[in-house]
Amino acid sequence: MTILREMNVKEQAIEAKKAAKIVGLLSREDKDEALHVLADTLEKEYKYILKANELDLERGRKKGYEDAFMDRLALTKERVIEFADGLRQVATLDDPTGTILSEWTLDNGLNVQKVTVPLGVIGMIYEARPNVTVDATGLALKSGNSIILKGGSSAISSNKAIVEIMHQALEKTNIPKEAVQFIESTDREATKQLFTMNEHIDVLIPRGGASLINSVVNNATVPVLETGVGNCHIYIDHEADVQKALNILINAKTDRPAVCNAVETVIIQKDWLEKNEELLTSTFKKHGITVHGDERALQCIPGSIPASEEDWADEYLSLELAVRVVNNLEEAVEHIDRYGTKHSEAIITENSETASLFLQLVDASCLYHNASTRFTDGGALGFGAEIGISTQKLHARGPMGLPALTTVKFMMRGNGQVR
Amino acid sequence: MTILREMNVKEQAIEAKKAAKIVGLLSREDKDEALHVLADTLEKEYKYILKANELDLERGRKKGYEDAFMDRLALTKERVIEFADGLRQVATLDDPTGTILSEWTLDNGLNVQKVTVPLGVIGMIYEARPNVTVDATGLALKSGNSIILKGGSSAISSNKAIVEIMHQALEKTNIPKEAVQFIESTDREATKQLFTMNEHIDVLIPRGGASLINSVVNNATVPVLETGVGNCHIYIDHEADVQKALNILINAKTDRPAVCNAVETVIIQKDWLEKNEELLTSTFKKHGITVHGDERALQCIPGSIPASEEDWADEYLSLELAVRVVNNLEEAVEHIDRYGTKHSEAIITENSETASLFLQLVDASCLYHNASTRFTDGGALGFGAEIGISTQKLHARGPMGLPALTTVKFMMRGNGQVR
Repeated sequence: MTILREMNVKEQAIEAKKAAKIVGLLSREDKDEALHVLADTLEKEYKYILKANELDLERGRKKGYEDAFMDRLALTKERVIEFADGLRQVATLDDPTGTILSEWTLDNGLNVQKVTVPLGVIGMIYEARPNVTVDATGLALKSGNSIILKGGSSAISSNKAIVEIMHQALEKTNIPKEAVQFIESTDREATKQLFTMNEHIDVLIPRGGASLINSVVNNATVPVLETGVGNCHIYIDHEADVQKALNILINAKTDRPAVCNAVETVIIQKDWLEKNEELLTSTFKKHGITVHGDERALQCIPGSIPASEEDWADEYLSLELAVRVVNNLEEAVEHIDRYGTKHSEAIITENSETASLFLQLVDASCLYHNASTRFTDGGALGFGAEIGISTQKLHARGPMGLPALTTVKFMMRGNGQVR
Repeated sequence: MTILREMNVKEQAIEAKKAAKIVGLLSREDKDEALHVLADTLEKEYKYILKANELDLERGRKKGYEDAFMDRLALTKERVIEFADGLRQVATLDDPTGTILSEWTLDNGLNVQKVTVPLGVIGMIYEARPNVTVDATGLALKSGNSIILKGGSSAISSNKAIVEIMHQALEKTNIPKEAVQFIESTDREATKQLFTMNEHIDVLIPRGGASLINSVVNNATVPVLETGVGNCHIYIDHEADVQKALNILINAKTDRPAVCNAVETVIIQKDWLEKNEELLTSTFKKHGITVHGDERALQCIPGSIPASEEDWADEYLSLELAVRVVNNLEEAVEHIDRYGTKHSEAIITENSETASLFLQLVDASCLYHNASTRFTDGGALGFGAEIGISTQKLHARGPMGLPALTTVKFMMRGNGQVR
């Protein structure tokens, strides 16, 4: 196995930028072939990866990480095959670059084309999951970019092994291995260096918890694609169908409580709550949901505990749920405006006009009428692949597929035109 | 005349955010009508604006501002009419919001729409020109946004008068006047407050010189649409037609030297220079262009003075020109990569393959083959209106029209779908 050379972060970024020029000129065929070579090599060398993963798991056990965290960290042969299949799937997607979005000719004969092109160098800053190392690399290369990977220290051995295998594989392709840079240092200073390399890095994509994302957003001068903190709400309107409301609420809370599109607060119109308080209480009990309620919720839902400011503002990522009671849609929208993270917000109502108003008024990337917030996911919505879920408004919003990793150029062709 | 109430910046931003909800729901008709009322009222009250402008001019004369600066600051009846006509022209443009960019239905029946929506609150931070006060307001309102205006202190009286008139006009429309906020304080602290109001401001757009733009980019946590510093290059290839090269170079340098799309450095292939050095020298002389050259340029162009690092890196915005001599395209691209600001870059050559390579390799928003860099302009390229020229890669690149002031929402409509 090749040993990754110790380099300083700036040198790596400069290498990535140079390599980006080469990747950006490659044909779709070259890139897809490289993705297949990457996939095949990862599968072939799965034992090397699992051995490295064992080191991370051992360290994790010693540190006493909780089960859910260890689950995300643990690799198996099957998971490595999933990584490889993910790369093969990206190879089937359309090349997002080289698309002429629009074209026109001025009266003076100057031809104007607006063409999609790669961003250049993508800096990926992420936490535990080693799958991001593979997924992000596949999406970056397919869209003609270089990538700088800075994973969490808890998965450092797995990530390093995966990148070693990928570098070995790239030697057999037209993509220079310098297009995939791995920051080996677990020092926080290394991450901070990435924050201000505007000359060499075109975009930073943080993936992880709120503190990681805020640290990048608040400290980076390099443009950031903000992803994924989801303090999601479901508003149950007074005209909500009871069965739909309960099904959707339980699905959004319990299907996978730890993910960003799970619901964290339900806002209930007071008349609906009064009519359905017993059924609601028994449903919460049945599914093991702990309720943190405001004053009115405490009165209606036995066993609920008082909600504090943090209950409204933070993600639980567990089977806990905040319950707020309101008089009307306006109060619901106000609550979401105040505490929402612009991720996924739903309304349950049989009145489609009320629903449309909610969809227009609430400021978020994904708005739902009578459906679970759990659909906010590139796979579930049919995007093919996803580099993250953007909760910002500029460039890309919601699940980000390959087009989010491109920008445009205006290409003007003339024969001597002047103004 | 109404007197603008002294408010603190945060209160103003909160008012703008509230008003944005209302503007965002208005129909195209409501918004266009409001633009016409704004236009008519500005024209009617032009004397009030000119009187205020006189105060700015007087202050400027006392401070000894240079002529070009005073020119940009000075208003006349005709210029006020131009502002009004600009607003009427924006009214003729398509509404950029409410467009369904794509729509599909999942197998489970969940309908997905990707719809354009307003950004919300736009913070405009700009220097002397009072026309930005009107232009930016028109574009923001047409795209359903609120705007916070923070103009330069040298135009404070003119800007204040313009906003007073616009507020007066908005009283007669369905747009709440709180949608247009004017920061009256000329204190730098007021500007800095805008930098970190992520909760209330959706995007900051700086327009002005490099120091203003850098200050916003480096200090703002609110997302920024970076505009307009143009250190533009023209590369004259060894296969360049002499007449085209000279025409384009002279146009790009002398048509309006002080604007961002003027050329600042010409990069010349050495063989072409040797063949054409006399003609080039006489052309520079005829047009009063001062040449700052590298070693080889100094040898070929009599009267040229040595170029320093600043000559390559900074905009002259005058009839000065840096001249760099290279052996080939690769060296030209390297120079542009190092010193360019990703604005507008041109190649002059009769070889279309060389041109295509240049257009692909150079990382900039606008690339030209055999045409002047001066075409980088919303008006010249047929965009209808322009809020600035983006030199960044995310969200919007190149001349930014109305669509740059929108984002998207995914609106999902179901009948109880869960995962």
